[in-house]
Amino acid sequence: MNIPTTPPSGFRDFLPEACALRSRAVETISRVYRSYGFQPIATSAVEDLAVLMGKGGGENEKLIFKLLKRGAQLEEGKATGELADMGLRFDLTLPLARYYSKYGSTLPRPFKAFNIGPVWRAERAQKGRYREFYQCDADIIGSDSPLCEVEVISAILTAFGAMSIEGLTVLLNDRTILYALLDEAKVPADKRGQACVLLDKLDKVEREKVLADLTELLGADSTKALEAMILTENEGHEAERRFAPDAFAKLELIRDTLRNLPGAHAEFKISPALIRGFDYYTGPVFEFRHPKLSGSLGGGGRYDKLTEKFGGQAVPACGASIGFERLLLVLEETGAVSAKEGKRVCVTIFDENLRQKTLDLAAELRSRKIPGVSVDVFPGSGKLKAQFKYADSTGADYAVVMGPEEADAGMLKRKDMKTGVEALMSFEDLAAGLSPA
Amino acid sequence: MNIPTTPPSGFRDFLPEACALRSRAVETISRVYRSYGFQPIATSAVEDLAVLMGKGGGENEKLIFKLLKRGAQLEEGKATGELADMGLRFDLTLPLARYYSKYGSTLPRPFKAFNIGPVWRAERAQKGRYREFYQCDADIIGSDSPLCEVEVISAILTAFGAMSIEGLTVLLNDRTILYALLDEAKVPADKRGQACVLLDKLDKVEREKVLADLTELLGADSTKALEAMILTENEGHEAERRFAPDAFAKLELIRDTLRNLPGAHAEFKISPALIRGFDYYTGPVFEFRHPKLSGSLGGGGRYDKLTEKFGGQAVPACGASIGFERLLLVLEETGAVSAKEGKRVCVTIFDENLRQKTLDLAAELRSRKIPGVSVDVFPGSGKLKAQFKYADSTGADYAVVMGPEEADAGMLKRKDMKTGVEALMSFEDLAAGLSPA
Repeated sequence: MNIPTTPPSGFRDFLPEACALRSRAVETISRVYRSYGFQPIATSAVEDLAVLMGKGGGENEKLIFKLLKRGAQLEEGKATGELADMGLRFDLTLPLARYYSKYGSTLPRPFKAFNIGPVWRAERAQKGRYREFYQCDADIIGSDSPLCEVEVISAILTAFGAMSIEGLTVLLNDRTILYALLDEAKVPADKRGQACVLLDKLDKVEREKVLADLTELLGADSTKALEAMILTENEGHEAERRFAPDAFAKLELIRDTLRNLPGAHAEFKISPALIRGFDYYTGPVFEFRHPKLSGSLGGGGRYDKLTEKFGGQAVPACGASIGFERLLLVLEETGAVSAKEGKRVCVTIFDENLRQKTLDLAAELRSRKIPGVSVDVFPGSGKLKAQFKYADSTGADYAVVMGPEEADAGMLKRKDMKTGVEALMSFEDLAAGLSPA
Repeated sequence: MNIPTTPPSGFRDFLPEACALRSRAVETISRVYRSYGFQPIATSAVEDLAVLMGKGGGENEKLIFKLLKRGAQLEEGKATGELADMGLRFDLTLPLARYYSKYGSTLPRPFKAFNIGPVWRAERAQKGRYREFYQCDADIIGSDSPLCEVEVISAILTAFGAMSIEGLTVLLNDRTILYALLDEAKVPADKRGQACVLLDKLDKVEREKVLADLTELLGADSTKALEAMILTENEGHEAERRFAPDAFAKLELIRDTLRNLPGAHAEFKISPALIRGFDYYTGPVFEFRHPKLSGSLGGGGRYDKLTEKFGGQAVPACGASIGFERLLLVLEETGAVSAKEGKRVCVTIFDENLRQKTLDLAAELRSRKIPGVSVDVFPGSGKLKAQFKYADSTGADYAVVMGPEEADAGMLKRKDMKTGVEALMSFEDLAAGLSPA
C-alpha cells in the first residue's frame, strides 16, 4: 500500500502562486480592518464540544469534526459511548462569544475585534465547498448603535475596494422585521424556523417550488401573504414600514449613512427576503453580493444574545465575515490583485572559486530590503544554462552572473529572463533597477 | 452546567496585543523568507493517518490528534476498532514531503518553499509547551549542495536579525558524523536510537545521569569512548576529522561560508553532541541557541530520504524551522518588536446631527492609507467624557472632536490622550501629524 500524496477529500494544498494570492488577500483585509480600529485577536482551533454544540447539541453537531479521546480516556469513552470531548471550530463567531465572555471585563467597551483564520466543517465536499476554509471576521461587541453596522459594512467594502472588487450590492434586512412579517402572515411560532429555511432557498431553488413548499407548510393564505410582503419587489416597503416601523427606520438609517459615505462604491438595498442562515441573529442582517457570483461574498448581522450562552449577561454585538474562498474565485478571475510583490532575481554561482563572493553579493542585495524584491541564489553550481533554466522556472525577472571577468572589474551581468537581453552593470545599478517605479 | 469560557488545556486565545505581536513576527519572517527567494506554500491541517503515521505507526502516533469518524463510517469503525482515519498535522515537514511527492514534477527544481502555520501535538500541556503552536519552515528540495544549508540558515538568521534578536549561536553537526562516532565507540546498530535519545538529554539532565544511563545501555567502554569523542569540548575535532572526514569537511564549508557572509551576526560552532530528535535527518543538522533560553530557538537539517515514504524516489532536501513560541517569549522580553504599527486615532461623535459629517471625516482619513494608522469611530454617541474614556481604553494616541463650532469653521479638535493637550487644527494638519516621522 502506498501512502497517499493527496490531502483528504475536501482539504486542499496550495501551490506557490495560489498561496501568495491568498496571503496578499489576508494581508489586505488585515490592513483595512486595522485601519478601521479593529484589533486583531486569535482563538484556539480546538474547542470543548460543550462550546461548539451548546446545551442542546442540535444543528451544529453535524458540522463538527470531533477529536478522538486518547489513552485511558478513550478506553473509558468506549464504555460510555463518549468518544470525544473536543472538536474543531466551525466558525469564528461562537469562539468570539466565548472569548468575550472570558476576557470582556479587561477589554475596551465597545470592543472592535477582527479574527482571520481557518475553520473546519464536516460537510460533504463539493465544487467550491471545502471542509477547511478561511473566515475573515470583524465584530463590534458591547454597543447597540446602528453605527456598528455602518462600521463593519464599510470596513468590508473598503477591503473589497482595496482588491478592486467592483459592482457590489449590499442587501439589508432585519430579523425583527422578518418575524413581524411572518407574524402578520399568521405563520405560527413553531413553524417560523422551517418557513425561514424555505424562504432562504429562493436563491437556489425555483420560486414556484418555494411557493409550493410554503403552501404545504403554512397553507395558501399565509403563503399568499408572504408572497406579497416578502417575495415581491417593493420599493415602497409598505409592509415593513407598517408592521415593524422602528426596525425599518433603523435599517434606513444604516442604509442612508452608508450611501452617503465618501467612496462607498456599492449599492445598498433593503431586502425583506434576506434571511442569513444562523439562528443567533437578533436584528439587522446583511449580505454582500457580487454580479459574478450566484451566492454571497460575505455577510453578517447583529447577534445580541450570543454571550448569554456562556452564563453571562447578554451583550449587544454585531459582526460580519468575508467569504474568503469565494473572494479568491473573484480575484483569480479579475487578476486585479497580483500574487507577485516585486521583482524576482536569481543569482547564479559561476564556479566554486566565486561562490563566497557571489553569496556576499546576494547578501548585500537582500540587506537593501527593496520592497517585495526576492533574491534567490542557485543552491549549487554547474552549467549556467541549467541555472538559467532554474531561474526561469521560478518566474525570475532577472538572472545575475558574476564570472571572473566581471568580478575583476567589480561589475556583474544581468540577464533579462523575458527578452534574453544581457547587460553589464554595477551593483548599484542592479539594485536601483529593482526598486518599485 | 455552564459552558466553559476557557479553551481546552494546552490551547490558547490571544488578546489583541499578543496577537498583534504574533502577526508582526509572522509578517517579518514571511517577508525575509520571500526576500531569499523562498516561495509560500500551504498544506491542509488535516492529513490521512497513513501520511502521519507512516507504514509502521510508531513514535509519532502518540503525538497525533485523530479526527473521529462520522455517521455510518463511525458505526463500522466501532465494530473494527478503527475509529479514525484522519488526524491533525504535527509538523510541516511530513506534509511538505507529501506535497513535493505530488506536485514536484510541476515545481522548479530545486524548489525553495516556506510554510508558516499551526501544528497540533497531543503532548501533555506544560509551561511553554502547547498543544497548538506555530511553525515557520523554510526548505529547499531537490539539491544536495551545502549551499542549501547556508541559504536556509542565513534566511533564519536574517529573520531573527530583523526582530533585533542578538547573540545567537548556531550549533552544527552531521548525522553521518554522529553515526561514525557511535560506530567507532562500538555502539551496536540496534542501540543507536536509544543512545541518541540519552545523548540528546544532555541539555536537560545532569551529565552524570546521562553517563550512568549510557553505561547501563552500552557498558563502560563504549560510554568512555563517547565521552571522549562526543561529550568533551574539543576545538580540534580530531575524532570527527578522522572518522568522518568527508562529512566534516562539508560541515566546515557550511560553517566557514556562513561566518564569512556580510552581516552574519552569530557564532557558528560544530558540536558533535548535537542530536536533533527527528529520525528522518540524514546529513547536516543545526540548531539556533539564544543566551536567554535553555533550549533552542529553532533548527533543522538535511533529510534526503523523506519523499521515499510516498513511494517516489529519494529527493535530497534540507530545511529548518523557527521555534515560534520561544521566539515570542524572547520578543516579549526584549520589546524590540512593537505590536503597534502606527498612530491610533479615535474619532468621537459629538451628536447625531454631526454624525454623517464625522463619519465622512473618518472615511477621508482612512482613505489616505497612512501606513499603520488606525482610525476608530466611537460606535454610538453620548457624553464626550465617556467617548474619551473609550479612546483611552483602546490605546488611542489621539481623540478627535468635531463639534458645531469646529464644523462651521472647517476645523477639528485633536486631544492628545497622553498629555490631555487639546489643539484646534485643520484636517490636513491632523493627517500630516499621523504620518510616520
